[in-house]
Amino acid sequence: MPLEWAGLSPDLLLVIDRESAEPLRAQLERQVRDAIRSGRLQVGERLPSSRELAAGLGLSRGLVQDCYAQLQAEGYLVTRVGSATRVAAGACGPPAHATPPAAAPRLVADFQAGVPDLGGFPVADWMWAMREAARTMPTSALDYGDPRGSARLRDVVAGYLRRVRAAAADPERLVICSGHAQGLSLSLRALAQCGVTTVAYEDPGAPTLISAVAAWAGMTAVPVPVDARGIDVAALDATGARAVVVTPAHQWPTGVVLAAERRLALIEWAVRRDAVIIEDDYDAEFRYDREPVGALQGLAADRVIGIGTVSKSLVPALRIGWLLCPPALAGQLVENKRLNDRGSPTLDQLALARLIESGRYDRHLRRMRATYAARRTALVDALAQYAPGVELTGLAAGFHAVGHLGDADEQAVVTEARKRSVGLYGMSANRSTRSTTPAQLVLGFGNVNERAIAEGIAAVADLLA
Amino acid sequence: MPLEWAGLSPDLLLVIDRESAEPLRAQLERQVRDAIRSGRLQVGERLPSSRELAAGLGLSRGLVQDCYAQLQAEGYLVTRVGSATRVAAGACGPPAHATPPAAAPRLVADFQAGVPDLGGFPVADWMWAMREAARTMPTSALDYGDPRGSARLRDVVAGYLRRVRAAAADPERLVICSGHAQGLSLSLRALAQCGVTTVAYEDPGAPTLISAVAAWAGMTAVPVPVDARGIDVAALDATGARAVVVTPAHQWPTGVVLAAERRLALIEWAVRRDAVIIEDDYDAEFRYDREPVGALQGLAADRVIGIGTVSKSLVPALRIGWLLCPPALAGQLVENKRLNDRGSPTLDQLALARLIESGRYDRHLRRMRATYAARRTALVDALAQYAPGVELTGLAAGFHAVGHLGDADEQAVVTEARKRSVGLYGMSANRSTRSTTPAQLVLGFGNVNERAIAEGIAAVADLLA
Repeated sequence: MPLEWAGLSPDLLLVIDRESAEPLRAQLERQVRDAIRSGRLQVGERLPSSRELAAGLGLSRGLVQDCYAQLQAEGYLVTRVGSATRVAAGACGPPAHATPPAAAPRLVADFQAGVPDLGGFPVADWMWAMREAARTMPTSALDYGDPRGSARLRDVVAGYLRRVRAAAADPERLVICSGHAQGLSLSLRALAQCGVTTVAYEDPGAPTLISAVAAWAGMTAVPVPVDARGIDVAALDATGARAVVVTPAHQWPTGVVLAAERRLALIEWAVRRDAVIIEDDYDAEFRYDREPVGALQGLAADRVIGIGTVSKSLVPALRIGWLLCPPALAGQLVENKRLNDRGSPTLDQLALARLIESGRYDRHLRRMRATYAARRTALVDALAQYAPGVELTGLAAGFHAVGHLGDADEQAVVTEARKRSVGLYGMSANRSTRSTTPAQLVLGFGNVNERAIAEGIAAVADLLA
Repeated sequence: MPLEWAGLSPDLLLVIDRESAEPLRAQLERQVRDAIRSGRLQVGERLPSSRELAAGLGLSRGLVQDCYAQLQAEGYLVTRVGSATRVAAGACGPPAHATPPAAAPRLVADFQAGVPDLGGFPVADWMWAMREAARTMPTSALDYGDPRGSARLRDVVAGYLRRVRAAAADPERLVICSGHAQGLSLSLRALAQCGVTTVAYEDPGAPTLISAVAAWAGMTAVPVPVDARGIDVAALDATGARAVVVTPAHQWPTGVVLAAERRLALIEWAVRRDAVIIEDDYDAEFRYDREPVGALQGLAADRVIGIGTVSKSLVPALRIGWLLCPPALAGQLVENKRLNDRGSPTLDQLALARLIESGRYDRHLRRMRATYAARRTALVDALAQYAPGVELTGLAAGFHAVGHLGDADEQAVVTEARKRSVGLYGMSANRSTRSTTPAQLVLGFGNVNERAIAEGIAAVADLLA
């Protein structure tokens, strides 16, 4: 697709050597020709006006016009009256890039977990917050800033986490990062730098991601089983690991909550082992049957790195999250963020602060809670109607649940469903062993509307039976 | 500063235990009291309306009103007619955070290098581009995306780099990152993963940053001298390093350009040693005396990682940059970006694409080129008038130059200037040895207007003489 440098004359790097024996016009013609041949200028792209190019190179305008006329005669350029000079359709350069991959076929319903309702993103509120941020920020906010992030957003997020998540959130030890992935990579790197060699993770969980980030950070990752009461703390203790990544409020992906006695046992383990708990608090805002449990971080701020993100509460594309840092690790985490990227984008941070402060963020969460509750009900109803043999487990929270397939073949169900344009995802990808038994589906309903949920389940009813 | 959750009722995490012997109202009162005492709710913060809180907790509104009335009587809350219930001024919690550090005293002129004209940021153009991006993006753009960044921005940046920097830019091997710092950390980590143990850097240069990032990535950094023709390639060869970070178009901070024969020698070195050149092309847009030299990457795309950023061309706060990846390293660099943060923020990327495509970016660069040329002239004039003994070197490019202090004591000049509210910065911080001889200043004039330049130099004239 040719790029359009509309309205204003584009810059173009050409080098004229006044000491060369080659005449200036010949140099200019040769360079424009080479730029087209080599693909630096592509078919349809605009050239600078002869006036602009002449001024930029210190040449006469007539010389540039002569050059353009010559290249037009040679078939490299086209000029229409009253329009800009462009690279001609016949001019040959190498193709800029390969044909884009064919778009994935549209699904009746895609039950991919971890994707929130993208169409529900409050784009008008976000743009309002952006404008407010741009209007009110001091000019100095445009410079490099504190690697921890904007002081305003840290204040606002800390207040929010104290209020909504009962977290022990101190803005001085809060680092704004670009979401869960960066929070995890900064944390594991900091722990590796402190001599921790092994990190444990929940199984089922996110074995592929955690193993890859751990290896990247220079650590080994080991799985620890999860049962109906959450992670098995005795099994964790037996690994000898001095760090663990957990999802206590809503276990990913089984959907269980960490039982009260396990919460205490986990903290006791961390104290006894001098270990660190990385708490991934990814979707705790969305509990719609009862009050959510507070963040573990609020109980043991010295032992817990709290990771939060707006990827589920707003959308992943914003790439904003935060780390609550234990005092002993705060310095290393801030230094890692500084060396990693010198801090997150400032305008986005100021906009999020405005969104939360104005109450629009809470309003959005309330709206989404109702949306996800309705979608979960639609899923429960559709299964009851079309596949009553499938048991559904997991809290009435977030936007995923686990469907139990009994004796069915997990992989066969997933493959056959795809042929019917229904996206289903097996639990095996979340198991450290990739085992396909017991056969289960992780059913995400965040980005599927109620009608699509019913249609999707109806279309695969016989597979699930 | 109390946070304002304006207009809309804020959420508040309180847990009511219906099986407890403690009455519901007592539970609620105790929890709100504890939230205030512990600092979760701070002086002046709004509480949810009694209606909202009652609905959220499944309690009667009357019970919540009674609770609020009791806490008002106890001095924890205040309610004014027609206004929200808030935490009372006398309610004691721990202070949310320490007193903010006193603002740095305002300088007559701050010659810090590396800071562009922050007031020149085209905020109206940027907000236009943001609106256009938000208006035209598909909903699917709000999901997690390609870790390399938006395909549209990669197309646009690749076209821009081919046109303006004569780079061999293929959008398939271009990774959008969050600026120079992330580009460098991703590159060094990738090289370390490929077995490169030592990275060389220019001296003078950025010894502190490069050494820290190299250590973070698991490498050793070694300095290589720079002379009037750029980096000494024979000295580089003698280090045995298989990677080097260079600024060929405008050496940071000496301001020299890498001589033509050195450019070729550097590429020959990379081929012979199977080494990688990391080209930091930080401010090449701003050459205002003559045509800039093209990017080294355009000559040896297989051997050069090209790092670019909008931190100098627009402002640092945007945190957008890019990497041009050699084919052999592209896979590792993309994977590192994915593990690091799953990609940069999408709306910002789409806005930058619109800004460039619309021609507004080129227009801004032309305006800034004139601004910086005028500021450099002002600096030359001020030195000629007030401190004619100070020789100024460095290309007429970018927004910094080097002032030579002869026999003066660099550190004494910097310290005494600060007492007179003039920010001067010695070359010693840029030397691997931190040597203060020869005494030199790195004079940044990007964010200082012409009047401040004259006033600033006048105020320190006797120190420079």
